Amino acid sequence: MLEGNVLYGQSGGPSSAINASALGVILEAMEHKDVIHKIYMMHHGIVGAINDDIIDVTDEDVAELKKLRHTSGAYFGNVRYKLLDWKDSEKDYRKILKTLKKYNIRYFFYNGGNDSMDTCNKISTYLQKVGYECRVMGIPKTIDNDLPITDHTPGYGTSAKFIANSMIDIDLDNASYPQGRVIVVEIMGRHAGWLAASSALANLQGHGPDLIYVPEIPFEMDKFYADVDKVYQKKKRCLVAVSEGIVDKNGSFIFQVGKKVDAFGHLRLGGVCQVLSTNVADALGVNSVALELSFLQRGACRIASKVDIEEGEGVGREAVKRAIEGVSDKMIAITRLSSKPYKIEYTLADLSAVANYENKLPRDMINEEGNNVTEKFIEYAAPLIDGELDDTFTSGLIDVPHLKNYRPL
Amino acid sequence: MLEGNVLYGQSGGPSSAINASALGVILEAMEHKDVIHKIYMMHHGIVGAINDDIIDVTDEDVAELKKLRHTSGAYFGNVRYKLLDWKDSEKDYRKILKTLKKYNIRYFFYNGGNDSMDTCNKISTYLQKVGYECRVMGIPKTIDNDLPITDHTPGYGTSAKFIANSMIDIDLDNASYPQGRVIVVEIMGRHAGWLAASSALANLQGHGPDLIYVPEIPFEMDKFYADVDKVYQKKKRCLVAVSEGIVDKNGSFIFQVGKKVDAFGHLRLGGVCQVLSTNVADALGVNSVALELSFLQRGACRIASKVDIEEGEGVGREAVKRAIEGVSDKMIAITRLSSKPYKIEYTLADLSAVANYENKLPRDMINEEGNNVTEKFIEYAAPLIDGELDDTFTSGLIDVPHLKNYRPL
Repeated sequence: MLEGNVLYGQSGGPSSAINASALGVILEAMEHKDVIHKIYMMHHGIVGAINDDIIDVTDEDVAELKKLRHTSGAYFGNVRYKLLDWKDSEKDYRKILKTLKKYNIRYFFYNGGNDSMDTCNKISTYLQKVGYECRVMGIPKTIDNDLPITDHTPGYGTSAKFIANSMIDIDLDNASYPQGRVIVVEIMGRHAGWLAASSALANLQGHGPDLIYVPEIPFEMDKFYADVDKVYQKKKRCLVAVSEGIVDKNGSFIFQVGKKVDAFGHLRLGGVCQVLSTNVADALGVNSVALELSFLQRGACRIASKVDIEEGEGVGREAVKRAIEGVSDKMIAITRLSSKPYKIEYTLADLSAVANYENKLPRDMINEEGNNVTEKFIEYAAPLIDGELDDTFTSGLIDVPHLKNYRPL
Repeated sequence: MLEGNVLYGQSGGPSSAINASALGVILEAMEHKDVIHKIYMMHHGIVGAINDDIIDVTDEDVAELKKLRHTSGAYFGNVRYKLLDWKDSEKDYRKILKTLKKYNIRYFFYNGGNDSMDTCNKISTYLQKVGYECRVMGIPKTIDNDLPITDHTPGYGTSAKFIANSMIDIDLDNASYPQGRVIVVEIMGRHAGWLAASSALANLQGHGPDLIYVPEIPFEMDKFYADVDKVYQKKKRCLVAVSEGIVDKNGSFIFQVGKKVDAFGHLRLGGVCQVLSTNVADALGVNSVALELSFLQRGACRIASKVDIEEGEGVGREAVKRAIEGVSDKMIAITRLSSKPYKIEYTLADLSAVANYENKLPRDMINEEGNNVTEKFIEYAAPLIDGELDDTFTSGLIDVPHLKNYRPL
C-alpha cells in the first residue's frame, strides 16, 4: 500500500464534465483515508505543479464540493502548456519533482485531452527515471470527443445535448416565420466533426439540421449551394450545422478561403457561419442568418447530460481506485458494452497510445453525400445526452460551489 | 352567454412562453364546451385571419397539446403585419370579418407585444362599428418586457433565466484561464434594457457581469474603456453585458457609429459586441472576445422558468375566462402583489393604453454610473426566473408536440 497524498490538475479547454471528474477524484480519495491523507489541486494544471501553486481541498465542505457536478469551466484553473521532453530540458521536471516531494504526492492525476495525456506520459517517464515512486493516471476530458481507444470522452455528452436542443429551439424559431430563412449554425471542432454531428440528434424530435458539414469531408461551396437549394425548395426553410474547421480539398480552412469581397471590394469578415450564410444568400437570393454557439456549447452545465456528468465523476473515481490498487501510466477509458440498453465499463488505456492522437468521425457515421450523419452515428450519440441532473438550480440559477480555497484566474 | 367559437393568433417575435399561452387558451376553452364549440388558430397571426388560413385544434390530443408548454417559437406561425386604420382602408377588415363569420368566431384572442395590441384594438373597434358581436382580448407576450401597465410580460422570465445562467457559465469559463480576458456579451433589446439587465442575476451566484450597458443610458466609448480598465486591474478579467441597441448621446446606434477602421483602412464589421470587444482590446491592450446570444435567448425552452411558463399559460386561460364573463377590448395584465414571497394576480388593461407604447427600464433600476443595475432591479427580476419544468425532456431532447394539424411556415 503506497501511502501519501493526491495531486490533481485540469488541462486544456474548459468543459462541462471536468469538474465532475475533479469531484470524483476528491470523493474517492476521501474514502481512502488510510492511504491518502491530503488532497491537493494544481492551480492551472501543470503550471501550478511547476510553480508550487497548489490548492488544498482536503477540508472543504462536501456539500459545497458536490456542486462541482454542475459547474462549468475548469474550477481549479486550466492551462495549455507543452512540456518539453526531459531529455531536452529538465528544468520544469525538476520543479515538478520538488513540488511532489514537498507535498509528499504519491498519486498524480491529470485531466484533459490528447496533449494532457502527453504531459502525463512525460511526467511518468521522468519520475521513473529519477526513481520517485508515484502513480500517474490520466483522466479523459474533451468536448471534441477526439481521443482514441475510449468510446467517448466526458464533456462531449453535455455539449452534444446543448447543441441538439439548441437546434430544436432554433428550428422552431425558423419554422414560426412566414418567410423562409436559411440559418447556418457554427459549432466547435477544428479537426473532428463529432460536435457538429451531434446536432443531428435534434432530428429525433423532427426539428434538426437539414445539412451537416464536418472537417472530415472536403467542403465544396457550389455543392453547398445545391444542397441548400434542394432543401429550401421543399421546406421553404433550411437549417445548416457546420464545424468551425471545415476545409476545402486542399485542406485550407473555409473561413479563410471561402470569403468573398463585398460591393466595396473589401474582404468580408467573420467566422465560417458568416461566410456560408452570406455566400448562400448571394447565390440563392434567400434570407440567411449566421449563429455561432461559441463558449455556450463548451460549458453547458445549465443543460447537463446526466449520463455524461456521472461518467465524468466515474472516470475520476476509477482513476483513484486503480491507482491505489497499483496501476500507473494509464488513462481511464470508457468501453461501451451495449447501446440499447446503454451500458459501459471503465477500462485502461496506455498513456502513450492516447497522447497526441486525434480520433476523427469515422466515414461510416457520415452519409454518402457527405452532408449529414448516418443512423450509426445516431445510435452511438443518443445515449450520451440522456437524463437530467436534479439539483443544478437554486432560485433559478446554477448553484455554484463556493470553496474556501477557490482562486479564480 | 355568447355561444360560438374561438380564434387565437400569435404575433411578433417568437418567445418561450407564447405557446404556453396558446395552450392556456385551448385548455380553458375546452373546459367551456357549453359556450365554445370549436377552437381555431390563425396560421401566422392576423394574416391567417385575412387569408382564411385557419388551423382547427379542437380535436387534437391533449397530451400532445400540453407539450406546447415547453415549446419554443410560435407554433402556429408568427407574423409582423401592420393593419392600416379601417378608416383609410377597409379591405383587410372585410376579409377578417368574412373569416369570423365563416367560422362563427365570437371569441378573438391575439397574443403579442405593443404592435399586436394595436392590431387587436383596431379589430375590436371595427367589429363594433359593423355590429358583429365578438369579444376581443389581448394576451401579452414579449421577451423584451417593454409593455406598460403589466408588471412584466410572459417570455421575459425564461429569456432572463437563459441569459443569467449563460453568464454564470461564461464567467466560469473566463475564470478558468491563466490569462485574463474581457468577454463582451451582446443581448437582445433595441430600445429597452430589461434583457441585458437580467444578466445581473448571475451575480447572485458570484459569477455575473461586471458591467452592463443598456439603451436607456447614452453610451460613451471612453467611459467604457475606463470602466473595463478599473475592473480588469482588480480581477484580471472582465465580463460585459450589452444591449444590442445602445446609443450615443445623439441617439445613434453604437454598432453603427462606434466602428473603427482596421489597419488596412477598412471599416470593421460585426454587431455591437464585436465593436466593443475590438475597440477595448485596442485601447487597453487586453485579450477580448465577443459573443452574441442571438436566437438562443428568445426561444429558450431548454432552460425555461417555471414561473414564466405558468404565467404564460395563466394569461391565456384568464383571457378566455374573462371573455366568457363578458369582458372585451382588454389585455390581461400581471399585477404583482409582493416579491417576497412572489405573488401576482391577473388584472385587465385597456388595449388602447398598451398599444404602441414602450416601457423602458426605469432610472432607479440602473445604478448612478449607468454601467450596472440596482438592488431594486434584482428584487424585481429574481422571482421571474424561478423554478424548472419537470417534463421538458425525453431521452435528453425537448419533447416537441406533434399535432395532427401542425403546419410550419
